[in-house]
Amino acid sequence: MRTPIPDYLDEILDALRDDDSGSVADYIPALKAANPDLFAVALTTVAGRTYSSGDCDVEFSIQSMSKPFAYAAALADRGEPFVTSRVGVDPSGEAFNELSLETGSHRPRNPMINAGAITTHHLLVGSGTSRQIRVERAREFFSELAGRPLRIDERIVESELEAADRNLAIAHMLRNYGIIEDDPHEVVAGYTAQCSISVTVRDIAMMTATLANGGIHPVTGTTVVARPIARRTLSVMASAGMYDAAGSWFTDVGIPAKSGVAGGLLGALPGQVGIGTLSPRLDDHGNSVRGQRVFRRLSADMGLHLMDSEALGSREPRSIAVSGDTTTVALQGVIDFTGAEVVLDRLDRSTPTTPKVIIDLSRVDSFTDVGRRMVLEGMRRLSLDGLAVGLKDPDEVLPEPDLGDGTFPFIPND
Amino acid sequence: MRTPIPDYLDEILDALRDDDSGSVADYIPALKAANPDLFAVALTTVAGRTYSSGDCDVEFSIQSMSKPFAYAAALADRGEPFVTSRVGVDPSGEAFNELSLETGSHRPRNPMINAGAITTHHLLVGSGTSRQIRVERAREFFSELAGRPLRIDERIVESELEAADRNLAIAHMLRNYGIIEDDPHEVVAGYTAQCSISVTVRDIAMMTATLANGGIHPVTGTTVVARPIARRTLSVMASAGMYDAAGSWFTDVGIPAKSGVAGGLLGALPGQVGIGTLSPRLDDHGNSVRGQRVFRRLSADMGLHLMDSEALGSREPRSIAVSGDTTTVALQGVIDFTGAEVVLDRLDRSTPTTPKVIIDLSRVDSFTDVGRRMVLEGMRRLSLDGLAVGLKDPDEVLPEPDLGDGTFPFIPND
Amino acid sequence: MRTPIPDYLDEILDALRDDDSGSVADYIPALKAANPDLFAVALTTVAGRTYSSGDCDVEFSIQSMSKPFAYAAALADRGEPFVTSRVGVDPSGEAFNELSLETGSHRPRNPMINAGAITTHHLLVGSGTSRQIRVERAREFFSELAGRPLRIDERIVESELEAADRNLAIAHMLRNYGIIEDDPHEVVAGYTAQCSISVTVRDIAMMTATLANGGIHPVTGTTVVARPIARRTLSVMASAGMYDAAGSWFTDVGIPAKSGVAGGLLGALPGQVGIGTLSPRLDDHGNSVRGQRVFRRLSADMGLHLMDSEALGSREPRSIAVSGDTTTVALQGVIDFTGAEVVLDRLDRSTPTTPKVIIDLSRVDSFTDVGRRMVLEGMRRLSLDGLAVGLKDPDEVLPEPDLGDGTFPFIPND
Amino acid sequence: MRTPIPDYLDEILDALRDDDSGSVADYIPALKAANPDLFAVALTTVAGRTYSSGDCDVEFSIQSMSKPFAYAAALADRGEPFVTSRVGVDPSGEAFNELSLETGSHRPRNPMINAGAITTHHLLVGSGTSRQIRVERAREFFSELAGRPLRIDERIVESELEAADRNLAIAHMLRNYGIIEDDPHEVVAGYTAQCSISVTVRDIAMMTATLANGGIHPVTGTTVVARPIARRTLSVMASAGMYDAAGSWFTDVGIPAKSGVAGGLLGALPGQVGIGTLSPRLDDHGNSVRGQRVFRRLSADMGLHLMDSEALGSREPRSIAVSGDTTTVALQGVIDFTGAEVVLDRLDRSTPTTPKVIIDLSRVDSFTDVGRRMVLEGMRRLSLDGLAVGLKDPDEVLPEPDLGDGTFPFIPND
Repeated sequence: MRTPIPDYLDEILDALRDDDSGSVADYIPALKAANPDLFAVALTTVAGRTYSSGDCDVEFSIQSMSKPFAYAAALADRGEPFVTSRVGVDPSGEAFNELSLETGSHRPRNPMINAGAITTHHLLVGSGTSRQIRVERAREFFSELAGRPLRIDERIVESELEAADRNLAIAHMLRNYGIIEDDPHEVVAGYTAQCSISVTVRDIAMMTATLANGGIHPVTGTTVVARPIARRTLSVMASAGMYDAAGSWFTDVGIPAKSGVAGGLLGALPGQVGIGTLSPRLDDHGNSVRGQRVFRRLSADMGLHLMDSEALGSREPRSIAVSGDTTTVALQGVIDFTGAEVVLDRLDRSTPTTPKVIIDLSRVDSFTDVGRRMVLEGMRRLSLDGLAVGLKDPDEVLPEPDLGDGTFPFIPND
Repeated sequence: MRTPIPDYLDEILDALRDDDSGSVADYIPALKAANPDLFAVALTTVAGRTYSSGDCDVEFSIQSMSKPFAYAAALADRGEPFVTSRVGVDPSGEAFNELSLETGSHRPRNPMINAGAITTHHLLVGSGTSRQIRVERAREFFSELAGRPLRIDERIVESELEAADRNLAIAHMLRNYGIIEDDPHEVVAGYTAQCSISVTVRDIAMMTATLANGGIHPVTGTTVVARPIARRTLSVMASAGMYDAAGSWFTDVGIPAKSGVAGGLLGALPGQVGIGTLSPRLDDHGNSVRGQRVFRRLSADMGLHLMDSEALGSREPRSIAVSGDTTTVALQGVIDFTGAEVVLDRLDRSTPTTPKVIIDLSRVDSFTDVGRRMVLEGMRRLSLDGLAVGLKDPDEVLPEPDLGDGTFPFIPND
Repeated sequence: MRTPIPDYLDEILDALRDDDSGSVADYIPALKAANPDLFAVALTTVAGRTYSSGDCDVEFSIQSMSKPFAYAAALADRGEPFVTSRVGVDPSGEAFNELSLETGSHRPRNPMINAGAITTHHLLVGSGTSRQIRVERAREFFSELAGRPLRIDERIVESELEAADRNLAIAHMLRNYGIIEDDPHEVVAGYTAQCSISVTVRDIAMMTATLANGGIHPVTGTTVVARPIARRTLSVMASAGMYDAAGSWFTDVGIPAKSGVAGGLLGALPGQVGIGTLSPRLDDHGNSVRGQRVFRRLSADMGLHLMDSEALGSREPRSIAVSGDTTTVALQGVIDFTGAEVVLDRLDRSTPTTPKVIIDLSRVDSFTDVGRRMVLEGMRRLSLDGLAVGLKDPDEVLPEPDLGDGTFPFIPND
Repeated sequence: MRTPIPDYLDEILDALRDDDSGSVADYIPALKAANPDLFAVALTTVAGRTYSSGDCDVEFSIQSMSKPFAYAAALADRGEPFVTSRVGVDPSGEAFNELSLETGSHRPRNPMINAGAITTHHLLVGSGTSRQIRVERAREFFSELAGRPLRIDERIVESELEAADRNLAIAHMLRNYGIIEDDPHEVVAGYTAQCSISVTVRDIAMMTATLANGGIHPVTGTTVVARPIARRTLSVMASAGMYDAAGSWFTDVGIPAKSGVAGGLLGALPGQVGIGTLSPRLDDHGNSVRGQRVFRRLSADMGLHLMDSEALGSREPRSIAVSGDTTTVALQGVIDFTGAEVVLDRLDRSTPTTPKVIIDLSRVDSFTDVGRRMVLEGMRRLSLDGLAVGLKDPDEVLPEPDLGDGTFPFIPND
């Protein structure tokens, strides 16, 4: 049996292919030359499987889609407090302010607007470093996310730098306010190189899936960034990513997203998927026309919406079985607050009547921090109730199961 | 064993109880008289269990926390297109505009600001109706959500109406632009009554949990509003609820929320919980000081953050077992896009080698629309591959399992 | 000989008569019914002569042209500090703020916008007064300025009050912020009556000429308001009167002006003229199309521009004559700073060589305060130089001519 | 007798000398080093007399006070339409927009803000020119206005260029929008040189007096710029010069003004005076603290307020005398609209009864264009009434006195 998901993606592209509204970015020759008919979509699950359709191997410049990834890298390199002292997290109010700097602090409002993205690029690696080092940091980090070595399209860099007055204006103003220290022309050159990294929609989907997967690469399993960094990056994308239509995109589509002027569009649903699309014709806000329509279809047809509460699997314990003097409570899946709450509620409503109780974690994928604390507390309370508490944990997903009084659960024989 | 969750809530309140910063709303006597030391929290899971701590049975006026619920009711009463023609969904930019009406359309920007909430109240039931009917609609709808009859605190209504100039200004301006048709004084009186409905934190948590549960009441199982309405309401809360600090609340706390001037604060995590707190001392933005701190603690300590990708349980099929000529694929939990994708991928990678395959839905809670379509398509493809496809669905969670060619799966003997 | 000025005015109207662009205000029936072809202009000099052309005896409602006059009356009734505590003097930034209230103080930005004009009306007479008394104050004050009893067009009042939601919104918001104390509906009713006073362009020109003449009625010679009030009123008109195009009106036309929605337009050039026009078709900003063109012609053709430095007559002394032992210095006109400077400079460069000097004020119209002080100081210095100083002042334009040492100038025989 | 005006200026400085509030600009070393106690005032009349007090020969950099003069030069060099296509005339709304560019056109709002001043500097001389040529144009033009060769303080230029990020940001943004074409760094270097021209308060007063005198240098009598350019420059100063407090400065002081960060402040009253002050301590808006207070005193004590209608001398004809068969009407001063109106009115009310009438212009200083046309029209009408009209015009202030029918007035024998 072939999975029908690629067929679904084919159908979506076919349904939207004829829409030739909008126009290719024409402010620089290198972008103007793009084939306007390119059309592609890719979707990578947090389990690491990628589905794609259309021109999914065509490379194009990442442009503003580099912003969330560079933000994640800056958070990793400099720490959240320092980064936040230089770039805020508020939606931009772009319409009201040419530069979107905050009153008073003069911080750029968020890392998704150019002022914030230039600042973010400047934060890479550390202070006193050079353009080359920052650019290489971005290229390597993006390559790690994509799972293959990415390269910079120097043709795009050159072309962009000839029309860089807006970014130079921003960078000079940022140095005026002490937000950046380096030569504005060096910073803009580096930022432009970051934006000129070549990607395919498959790269984009994979890179984004890592953020959706809490910073863990869905294929390699490597922790590329810490979970709080992935969460913060997605949060900022959600509130400030599609700035000109923040409210209606959030309401109608519900997928945190970021677009690039070369026609790319990326989106992430935490715990589910990363998505990338390519279609070079842009609307008046500079967002890919057909790319946005693909997202609307994915949201509507596949229930991919941040606020859709169906997204959760069963939270019931896998089984509670009594055998002889022992009650075995088998948990399953990821045990977070909600998962632990269900177990504790079950134990509360029907405390085991046998003298022994075994918590079986054989089918548990992992614990969140709070899930771990809650299950341990439940075990401690069973122990206080006078029960002998055992733990079956072949994969050691619950290390150091201290019952709080210095004792540990017994290890049951299989 | 007693579940430790109430103890966790107790601990949070104890840790924050001494914070007496901020001050009780004093613009009307009825609010000024509130006991500033009241402190309570309640949390209702989408499974319908409520945990609470502190002054959780004290009634107070719902105030602006009525806004999301009235919005859901208006969407139900008038349909999304009509409601959206009168109230937008964009974050407000409150700081820039006294009234936050959109340029051109003069629509209020969203239903979470007063202009939008007054318009929303006016939309209840239908055109040409009366204040009494609208108010009763709000009271009954809120009561259904809370699961008990709520009453209006007439003392609050009277006191508010003596200081209603701001809302009257807004209502006159709305009629000036044709957004509302009725007498502005009638509309404001009705809106004020809606805001004066008395609730406890347990009511609030329960009401909110219904939104978090896709519109289905977690205790009664009644569909109070359709899923798209619940989703839209949460989306607007997420982007416009805590307006003055939209970005940082979203980033740091990640729980869509709405506060009331009487000291209440509600929050929802889709698919997980509804939360209500009470603490009457407000900060300069009019939000409960300790209420916000409780939310920060819940987010940080319990991993309750919208962008936290840990929130998902296992998506693996419960089991794939071969017995004689039959492979049985047992699914579990809620089957949405991601759940179905996992099953289809497994079937793709290892198509059953037996002539018969049975899809066992005994442990499936429910299908989303896309999940249903994807699993049916998988079954159809298995059938096209020449396999005999059976369906075990004792609870009829997958009605009308048409294989696409007019045939239906066989019903296996147990 | 007939003066050609009426012919000039006729020519201007003839040249512009065919312009039928714009449209009559249609938000209330009473205005919609206006004859769109009405066209009139009147011009009153500070010497009290009025020239007019076209439909100069047709009455129409004064509307927003009442704002500067009511502001002058409020300044007279309540004093400048109190009025300024309630209404500012800054250009409005109307585009940015529905209500144009200042951040922080919530004062309306200036008396030329509706919020400021409603507040100004409410300031008339004194606190604790009634609508009737305020309206009668406005009617009597305007009548005094016009030099004839004006009446209120009750038909307009009624019609306006049926469409008063915008003003009611503003008034409620003003009471919300404590800027006004009375019932908003009473205040708006009074303000509406003020705006419904019937005038002709000749009335408007005369009323405005009083402001241009420093508060002194150019026909009756009565001081209707003190000079600083006239000056302040004109200053606010200059900076905030034609709000939507403040800069270009100021630059291109240079006549402080205020328009009314019934098609009136008034303008003042200090020390020169008051102007009124009528043409009911309005542009998108609500300003009379042909009225504005008349002003542009008057400014361009007649050199009537605030910044035109040609506006001054000769400042030389009328004559300096030596006869026997006496030098007679004959001054003329109005002696202000510049006039006095000229005289003092002449006496400095050629101090009289005769033992007696007589200052002849027979041809002096008046002194400003500073002019009086400067000329007296000059006489004192001549006296210190050892000269006998006489003063010829048949009209007593320089009372109490103390030479600073307790002595007074001698009175020459004619 | 010594004129007391210098003593008045001394008194003002003495009264304000002790005010040491505010602080010297410290963003560059060259300004930080200024002696904060410097205090000077100069006042030049349109007749070319300069009065001064304090440190009136100390040189300091002109800074933003160069803006109006460069604007006048650009209008002269490029014409009003082209200049206006690049720089608007609207008050800035600086508070709302970092750069104060107009929506849509991206023109800077006016030439008094930095974006407008940089654009104005770039407009000097013509397109395709160089920094050196523009700077020399500014230096020469300013020198002509000041009546002495001014020099550029290169120390200031260097110091400013080290802290020029804000202006570089603006210039890059201006090129981004196509408002300027040249290299932003060249333009900013040129603008900085313009701002670094050294002046004294006496220079400033003289330069400004030329604008107040309609573009004619009050000492040399040279027409430095055409009257409409002087008028436009003063208009823009009036509406946009003291931007942060536009309304209240206009109302309270009433002298169009512009300040410089080195502590200078200039002001102009059309037809009267140019004023310059120096006091390096600045308030939070960057305006000289004591400088502003000097202006307030000059306005209040000397009646120097744009809206003060006392400013006019007598407009009556000098004399109307009948002798034999001839009536002689002797005019005086400057004959503008108002001056001509008075004469025509007199002739209208009492048409000469003698067969001959002579218009005597011996004491007339000049005619405005409209004054000339009006007086000629009066003569033509007298001629049509059958009178023999003569003209006595020894200084030829009324050239080509065609009576409209091809005849000319007779020349009377003296």
